[in-house]
Amino acid sequence: MADDKKLTPRAKDFSAWYNEVVLKSEMADYSPVKGCMVIRPNGYGIWERMQRALDDMFKATGHQNAYFPLFIPESFLHKEKEHVEGFAHEFAVVTHGGGKKLEEPLVVRPTSETIIYSMFAKWVQSYRDLPLLINQWANVVRWEMRTRLFLRTTEFLWQEGHTAHATHDEAEAETRQMLGIYRDFMEGYIAMPVITGRKTDSEKFAGALRTYACEAMMQDNKALQAGTSHNLGQNFSKAFELKFQSEAGTEEFAWNTSWGVSTRMVGGLVMTHGDDAGLRVPPLLAPIELVIVPIYRSDEERTLVLEAADNLAKSLRAWDRREASRLRIHIDRRDGMKPGAKYYEWELRGIPLRLELGPRDIAANQGVLVRRDTKEKRSVSLESLGEDVADTLSAMQRDMLAAALERREANSVRTPISYDAFKELMAGKGGFVYAGWCGDAACEARVKEETRATIRCLPDEEFRSAVAPTTCLRCGKASTDEALWAKAY
Amino acid sequence: MADDKKLTPRAKDFSAWYNEVVLKSEMADYSPVKGCMVIRPNGYGIWERMQRALDDMFKATGHQNAYFPLFIPESFLHKEKEHVEGFAHEFAVVTHGGGKKLEEPLVVRPTSETIIYSMFAKWVQSYRDLPLLINQWANVVRWEMRTRLFLRTTEFLWQEGHTAHATHDEAEAETRQMLGIYRDFMEGYIAMPVITGRKTDSEKFAGALRTYACEAMMQDNKALQAGTSHNLGQNFSKAFELKFQSEAGTEEFAWNTSWGVSTRMVGGLVMTHGDDAGLRVPPLLAPIELVIVPIYRSDEERTLVLEAADNLAKSLRAWDRREASRLRIHIDRRDGMKPGAKYYEWELRGIPLRLELGPRDIAANQGVLVRRDTKEKRSVSLESLGEDVADTLSAMQRDMLAAALERREANSVRTPISYDAFKELMAGKGGFVYAGWCGDAACEARVKEETRATIRCLPDEEFRSAVAPTTCLRCGKASTDEALWAKAY
Repeated sequence: MADDKKLTPRAKDFSAWYNEVVLKSEMADYSPVKGCMVIRPNGYGIWERMQRALDDMFKATGHQNAYFPLFIPESFLHKEKEHVEGFAHEFAVVTHGGGKKLEEPLVVRPTSETIIYSMFAKWVQSYRDLPLLINQWANVVRWEMRTRLFLRTTEFLWQEGHTAHATHDEAEAETRQMLGIYRDFMEGYIAMPVITGRKTDSEKFAGALRTYACEAMMQDNKALQAGTSHNLGQNFSKAFELKFQSEAGTEEFAWNTSWGVSTRMVGGLVMTHGDDAGLRVPPLLAPIELVIVPIYRSDEERTLVLEAADNLAKSLRAWDRREASRLRIHIDRRDGMKPGAKYYEWELRGIPLRLELGPRDIAANQGVLVRRDTKEKRSVSLESLGEDVADTLSAMQRDMLAAALERREANSVRTPISYDAFKELMAGKGGFVYAGWCGDAACEARVKEETRATIRCLPDEEFRSAVAPTTCLRCGKASTDEALWAKAY
Repeated sequence: MADDKKLTPRAKDFSAWYNEVVLKSEMADYSPVKGCMVIRPNGYGIWERMQRALDDMFKATGHQNAYFPLFIPESFLHKEKEHVEGFAHEFAVVTHGGGKKLEEPLVVRPTSETIIYSMFAKWVQSYRDLPLLINQWANVVRWEMRTRLFLRTTEFLWQEGHTAHATHDEAEAETRQMLGIYRDFMEGYIAMPVITGRKTDSEKFAGALRTYACEAMMQDNKALQAGTSHNLGQNFSKAFELKFQSEAGTEEFAWNTSWGVSTRMVGGLVMTHGDDAGLRVPPLLAPIELVIVPIYRSDEERTLVLEAADNLAKSLRAWDRREASRLRIHIDRRDGMKPGAKYYEWELRGIPLRLELGPRDIAANQGVLVRRDTKEKRSVSLESLGEDVADTLSAMQRDMLAAALERREANSVRTPISYDAFKELMAGKGGFVYAGWCGDAACEARVKEETRATIRCLPDEEFRSAVAPTTCLRCGKASTDEALWAKAY
């Protein structure tokens, strides 16, 4: 049984390892619909916790949730030229409804700028109606030929924020604020450090003035774009007549932003923290933080141990954590299954802490606590277990971020690098390379052609190298920007 | 301004009143997509609170959330004959994806039995894998010709529970349990009393063995089917080969249930509690429970009152309510708007409590608290406001349910009624009529044709009349069942 469950080691085939972790830990499954996945409870539970945390952060910054139609009339998508060019090849199109051919085909939303700003135009009259700060949790569809569980699927779940402001600067501040919230969330909850920065024109959102992104490094040293925030300028407000009367009495077009993160983050979590035994879930996102595995050899012992486990779980749940949330505990009551098989399963699923509890432990008022991240095992007193567990979970959350950060920095190159060395690196182990760029899209395209690496972003100030690069990685001309180059998902 | 905001009275035109309340309180808006609505923050905030409460109830009874594809291959829907007959005329069909015509058209899910049980068949091998208790929060699409905000739209939001069990009796118990949870939620949270019972064959879910429903009475005396729970028998497990090895080693088909409630409940809330001044939201579902309206005549007074309001809100939020949730408070800081205009708006939106706070109130450490349901106004001490507000909100929640129950009973007929009197009643004020039924679908159809009333359900034991009816309402033959007859949404 354990054998066919064994995962391909990451070092052997990272991509095979990833699929196996996701499928065997029952986070997701393939569906009979091409390109669409099923998110199973073990995966959805993590997504739910992500949603809850982000939603609280959005609301704390004045955003409200709403819901807009799944279908968008095709003509709406054509109103912003760059936008339709960017998305048209990915449209899923409804041509028939209620048994009849539709007069105008409906596109299943690939993103909702067009339908949302058409509504904003109806709701906004005066500067008093601004800013308008809206978020939507929804499914979107982008027809994909090559899909991967969580990372790229035809349908995916996400949130899309859409806002309208009176000035360019306010919109820019909102765009940056939301990027900051994404970074705080990814580092604070997913324990996944990110580099934030601006996208080049060739990588920006179709229809945006500027796109900012969070880029994380996976364990195969490839970058994952984990969230984006767009300053849309007045492109959509002009296309949809989203106008307002200013305080001075003039008629102006509003300034828009949009920003989104998706179930792709669940894939990022797996590829940031998983090991050869399976998933490792950061405590703040774990649907179960502590699993109690009872150990017994007779029915009598079983009764004794399960009763002790019940009492323990009850007192742990009542124990008041600083963050005022209850410990999430599960007792694995399955009979006819050896403790070792249970350990194996919970490790595969990445549950942060395991408490092994047998009759002798109970007699000594102790248990064995095992951390999933370090596999450290230690005897713990049941007396002060609440505090011990809470402290250990906090430590894990910190340690997982620190470990991911250390790995990223160990695989980042900040010293001047020749293009030949860069090509060799990208053909080999890969990584993040901070190097100059001349600002020419042709150079960027050539690097992509020759190495499959792209400019992930032009990093924000704090991520730039102490000594700015002076020449372009590819052409050797003067550098206009420091760029983060990497292969990406 | 107030004039064009004035609502059509309910007594004059209930349907016009309903649309006006929904639009003017900014709960929802029409969209440019035929039959689809936009749920605005004031409406979505109520839906979010409904979701949170229901989700907690589902999880407390062992259900887990998951997510299945939006698209269903057309052939899947044809596998259960009654199912496809019930839904085919409402299909929205995707025929093109990524610029190409699809080999097999995809139907946008009208409900997910077919896709979900095809996955269950993959996951379930043995009786040890049962029961499988899954819920999904999702959007669904049913092509509708005549739509109404929240009550009937082409796309709507809902949850759909899907379970698999080893025996018929377990499935029946689950079906009944979920009906009970719906009832508890509708009465406990929406303060909307419901009659539960079984649907007749002509009204049951397409593909079900038995359908149970919650039926509520709106203020126009029409019934609203607010939630359904289906025992699907083995109809879908046979269509999708959902088999398991029993404890005895034999191969058996699983027994399924499905159950759902939708954004339609928001419409039910409006039609149960709204009055001619607008919405009245039961406290447990109100995104804002208490709005503080500052009263002032000078900048100096404004500063004073807003500072007091801030301090008050802070101490109220810190006040520990029995249910351990924070009071949801909003201070209306808008300047250049008269208090009266603010009162009008908050009444329209149905916020449960309003505190009017002026400089003289502050000097006397008091304020004026106004209940939205009764419009009762009273002076309250700011000292003990936390407890006062919490008690008043609890009282409102109870009183609103009691008032709705009283209204329903006052418009219910439980005494024997002739068919002529019934026709007259249905042509007039309508209501719920408990009367006999011979069990013949033809009689049921004739009543519908002649009066537009239908059998809403065959009520559960506790809702049946003390003296059971002996004859059929329509044909006068012996009654086999007591039926609840009413016109419905």
